[in-house]
Amino acid sequence: MTDRFAGRRAAVAAALSDAGAQALLVTDPRNIDYLTGFRGSGGVVLIEDDGEAVLCTDSRYELQVVEQAPGVGHVISRDYVAGVLGRRRGAADRPLAVEADHLTLSANAALRRDLEEAGAAGAVIVETRGLVEQVRRVKDAGELDLISRACRVADEAWLHLLTSDGLAPGRPEREVAADLEHAMRRAGSDGVAFDTIVASGPNGAFPHHEPGDRLLSGGDLVVVDFGATVGGYASDCTRTIALGAAPDRLLEAYEVVHRAQSAGVDAAREGVPCAELDAVSRGLIAEAGLGDYFGHSLGHGVGLDVHEAPAVSSKSTSTLSVGDVITVEPGVYLPGLGGIRIEDTVAVTSSGGKALTTTSTALTVL
Amino acid sequence: MTDRFAGRRAAVAAALSDAGAQALLVTDPRNIDYLTGFRGSGGVVLIEDDGEAVLCTDSRYELQVVEQAPGVGHVISRDYVAGVLGRRRGAADRPLAVEADHLTLSANAALRRDLEEAGAAGAVIVETRGLVEQVRRVKDAGELDLISRACRVADEAWLHLLTSDGLAPGRPEREVAADLEHAMRRAGSDGVAFDTIVASGPNGAFPHHEPGDRLLSGGDLVVVDFGATVGGYASDCTRTIALGAAPDRLLEAYEVVHRAQSAGVDAAREGVPCAELDAVSRGLIAEAGLGDYFGHSLGHGVGLDVHEAPAVSSKSTSTLSVGDVITVEPGVYLPGLGGIRIEDTVAVTSSGGKALTTTSTALTVL
Repeated sequence: MTDRFAGRRAAVAAALSDAGAQALLVTDPRNIDYLTGFRGSGGVVLIEDDGEAVLCTDSRYELQVVEQAPGVGHVISRDYVAGVLGRRRGAADRPLAVEADHLTLSANAALRRDLEEAGAAGAVIVETRGLVEQVRRVKDAGELDLISRACRVADEAWLHLLTSDGLAPGRPEREVAADLEHAMRRAGSDGVAFDTIVASGPNGAFPHHEPGDRLLSGGDLVVVDFGATVGGYASDCTRTIALGAAPDRLLEAYEVVHRAQSAGVDAAREGVPCAELDAVSRGLIAEAGLGDYFGHSLGHGVGLDVHEAPAVSSKSTSTLSVGDVITVEPGVYLPGLGGIRIEDTVAVTSSGGKALTTTSTALTVL
Repeated sequence: MTDRFAGRRAAVAAALSDAGAQALLVTDPRNIDYLTGFRGSGGVVLIEDDGEAVLCTDSRYELQVVEQAPGVGHVISRDYVAGVLGRRRGAADRPLAVEADHLTLSANAALRRDLEEAGAAGAVIVETRGLVEQVRRVKDAGELDLISRACRVADEAWLHLLTSDGLAPGRPEREVAADLEHAMRRAGSDGVAFDTIVASGPNGAFPHHEPGDRLLSGGDLVVVDFGATVGGYASDCTRTIALGAAPDRLLEAYEVVHRAQSAGVDAAREGVPCAELDAVSRGLIAEAGLGDYFGHSLGHGVGLDVHEAPAVSSKSTSTLSVGDVITVEPGVYLPGLGGIRIEDTVAVTSSGGKALTTTSTALTVL
């Protein structure tokens, strides 16, 4: 356990010197979990440039921190930042890196006060972006296993929903969401990775529809977007099914999205720029004349966060590498009519993407 | 619909001039929801000092924004901040307030760049804290109704769990959590307000235990902390039950916590300082010699967020007023042995607190 976290901290420490700092104040809870194992909702960690870490949390987590993060020193205090600064080694005014994508203006002001009180008013604060997140991109075998398990749990729940008449006409969207989430938990999920989307009929045109009281109805396409978590790691999967005979325009669009999604998965290969991968699926949808109806990006990284690096969009400057786990999730949304989205969680390999969510993506008609 | 949001924006606009600014850039998603009705996961809102608002979100929410926030103008763009700044009225360099507890260093840097591009490099950025959150403290009748409904849904699910042998010895904690969450959804919850805590036996000594594979066992106290959401509003409730004959030390501690919790609810009256309310319950626990085992604060506000203003702690400088909805949740945690927490969601009135979660807080022995 300790070794795994120490290895991650060493990778962060190596990146730290490139950033011109000798220590990093980690405030993002997922990054804290990743670097120490601690999963409490309050606390900060200071990583020194040799990978040593000290964690400060409050009394609610006094027992939990010992159990979850035995490999790091800790301080119990409500003043998290002051708590770790007090343990800092060497001169108090050495450059200190912070997570600029997470640290708020208020927290930054508090940090300045704490530094002043520690006699280090002159310390340079180095704003870093994505430093731990880039290390997190490279999933190790243990992480891949947890994501795969989260995917299997979601698959199992989806098959349970399909075979238990969970998607029958007359059922409200919100009940379908409740049943699917319960099935994921019964299958071994620690919770849900995000609120399940069940978007039936015209609601399918809203990519992020909140499941409501609408009853599933014959002729609907139904978009279901759901994720499990196992050991802190997420899965992310979307399937779209038809209830009986859906309108031709939707069925044609389904085939386009299906082709675009398969092509995207196949192309998710080491060395491919993320923007290029986005273009593979987007190009097929545009060729079919549906480009205007696919407004969001193709996907995103998945790990401790259900949305993490790399972004898989037309604007992304990242390139895929082995260890990346991403989603491939093209969609077509036709206002007033309905929508289609098909999404797998995909591990990037040297020969193409390997879908970790494995239920059929061909159109299921119920 | 529009009027309700306009009233809230007017209250924020009034607070704005006290803060020395003429517009507020709202970046906290809950505050955006509160002030406009928009519930997408990406976007920002600019509130002018006359209460007028403009919202910017991306294409994923193009339909949703019209449906949820018909009363405000909107712009579709991925550059949220630039999108709303482009619609700003009057001189571009008038003082602009930001939410310092939410705006990150990165977002602040982007805002500075956007202001510069808008020819307003000299605009003063006013860091505000809790401006919208203080307005949110005063729940109107509609909000109280939604919180009450979220409480009833949680009550119903709890009673279902008790009467369906959901808490029987031999069941894993994680299954109990799954069943309770499913029961809340079936009873009308839109989701869960937070991950349910089921902490059995010695795990009860961890106030924020994650439900795991431990099997409930005869002689355990079991702490269950759960919340529903209805229309975006949360409930928050904790009950502790005994499976058969629990150790005397825990049963005695239960009675202490029970008295402390009842006294806390009764004392949650308009005009009482939050720190004083905390002292009411804490004093009773300390008198019984258990003060060292109650490390967390007595409670917190509940609304769109399950944790919001006011803090109910020894350090709080707030005073209760009608419209506040808070939790009263004292606990005692005995390492190695187990724990007790009893929590209600409570509406503050002029004559004392009114518990909105209404299931029995007396010890239930199963």
